[in-house]
Amino acid sequence: MTHPFDPGYGNEPFRTLCQEYPGVDVYPAARFRIEWGPIFHRGRLDGSARVLVIGQDPAQHETVVRRILVGEAGRRQQGFLAKLGITRSYVLINTFLYSVYGSVSAAARKKPDLIAYRHRWLDALLVGQQIEAVVTLGSLAAEAWQLWKATPQGQATTVAVAAITHPTQPESASQGDKTKLAAAIKAMLKNWNAGLQQLAPAIQYPDQATPLVLYGDTFQDGDRVPIPEEDLPAGLPAWMHEQDGWARRVGTDDQKKRANITITVPKGVLP
Amino acid sequence: MTHPFDPGYGNEPFRTLCQEYPGVDVYPAARFRIEWGPIFHRGRLDGSARVLVIGQDPAQHETVVRRILVGEAGRRQQGFLAKLGITRSYVLINTFLYSVYGSVSAAARKKPDLIAYRHRWLDALLVGQQIEAVVTLGSLAAEAWQLWKATPQGQATTVAVAAITHPTQPESASQGDKTKLAAAIKAMLKNWNAGLQQLAPAIQYPDQATPLVLYGDTFQDGDRVPIPEEDLPAGLPAWMHEQDGWARRVGTDDQKKRANITITVPKGVLP
Repeated sequence: MTHPFDPGYGNEPFRTLCQEYPGVDVYPAARFRIEWGPIFHRGRLDGSARVLVIGQDPAQHETVVRRILVGEAGRRQQGFLAKLGITRSYVLINTFLYSVYGSVSAAARKKPDLIAYRHRWLDALLVGQQIEAVVTLGSLAAEAWQLWKATPQGQATTVAVAAITHPTQPESASQGDKTKLAAAIKAMLKNWNAGLQQLAPAIQYPDQATPLVLYGDTFQDGDRVPIPEEDLPAGLPAWMHEQDGWARRVGTDDQKKRANITITVPKGVLP
Repeated sequence: MTHPFDPGYGNEPFRTLCQEYPGVDVYPAARFRIEWGPIFHRGRLDGSARVLVIGQDPAQHETVVRRILVGEAGRRQQGFLAKLGITRSYVLINTFLYSVYGSVSAAARKKPDLIAYRHRWLDALLVGQQIEAVVTLGSLAAEAWQLWKATPQGQATTVAVAAITHPTQPESASQGDKTKLAAAIKAMLKNWNAGLQQLAPAIQYPDQATPLVLYGDTFQDGDRVPIPEEDLPAGLPAWMHEQDGWARRVGTDDQKKRANITITVPKGVLP
């Protein structure tokens, strides 16, 4: 049995980008969980990506795996890409390198050095590359895209773009209320269907040519897709990409929770 | 501020080795914590290594960081290499890819496929490379070396070898008894001094030419050396390589402990 894995950041320009990431002077510790380190990307860095996704910020599963969008949001996003026939030719980066703590202030997110570093990634992924479509998840990612699009490199780049609702916005917005959750998921999937219809004509080189099947009012079987093993670093166990909910922030107060990540191997994995 | 990091396994032959690692059919789950995945190495894979270290098996810090010998044993071993003037031209692999659970049976450690896979790594690191010295940590690593040395490739390879006591053998042997611990550390450092004297003449290309200063009866300031940032994957926070004791297996019984790794950011790091 072979285990494909993501070779990571050995090649330029990503090697230098991953050596020169901004720290606490750019990402204030009051607003970002800077103590867990930056988490950079998921997907292809070898120039084969056709779709670029901009997410928001990493959470606890991402912190363990050191790749972004590997939890529930990632699984939903993976399903969105699959509907476009994109099963491996994608690359994902986030608006923020570090996990947001509480909420992001306008001052924090407009820091020139924060934006400049993100633009170096966007330049590397878009300029002279073969990206055909860009997907932004949520309003902060949409803003990040607009800021890059206004640069000379951005103005010179023609790609299809869909700014869609963040995949776990329904959970954030409904705060445990099941009726609200169902309504928010329905609204999100309607929004996603519009995004799919915008992007589908732009995808000239899908990994698997697929007739476009839109979402219904709820997630159906197959709408959530596991994170491929080849997106994770070498040697990570299968449950880290196949399952979700195995990493939690545990603690009796906010500070203890902030200092903690508890990993629990899912039931059925241990002998 | 730049953050050097280990680029990992992107290049052959390591890329294929990290895709083709043995699983539960070779490493029985009753004897190895196979559920956390294999952990392969630490140090240089670009041919610049002059010293090869063979350790035993990874523990919880190694499981989070996905590099071997990054806890207390690694820190002590790093100090041993520094006494030889080797501060970056080293590569470390383990006898076992997975963490030992309980103890290893002779049957488990003699499995031909387990040995054959390890030999592929040793071939890659030694045959036609510039390794000048090999250090084995503990009896199982010494056995691993002997098994490879008996192969045609091993017989054709001339390097200085020191089989030294495993760096945390004193803790294992003394079981919390402070008098026994001090005696075991003293005995270990005497053993390490013999190893240093064996290896020092063989090191033709140290990173820093250093007169050989032997250990005393106890670890002195500077005898433990932090794991260099460049040995860890991209983006890991400083406390993961500068500090120890931040990962524990927590649980009310053996099975729960086996399923758990709890990471706690050390005091003083959080804002």
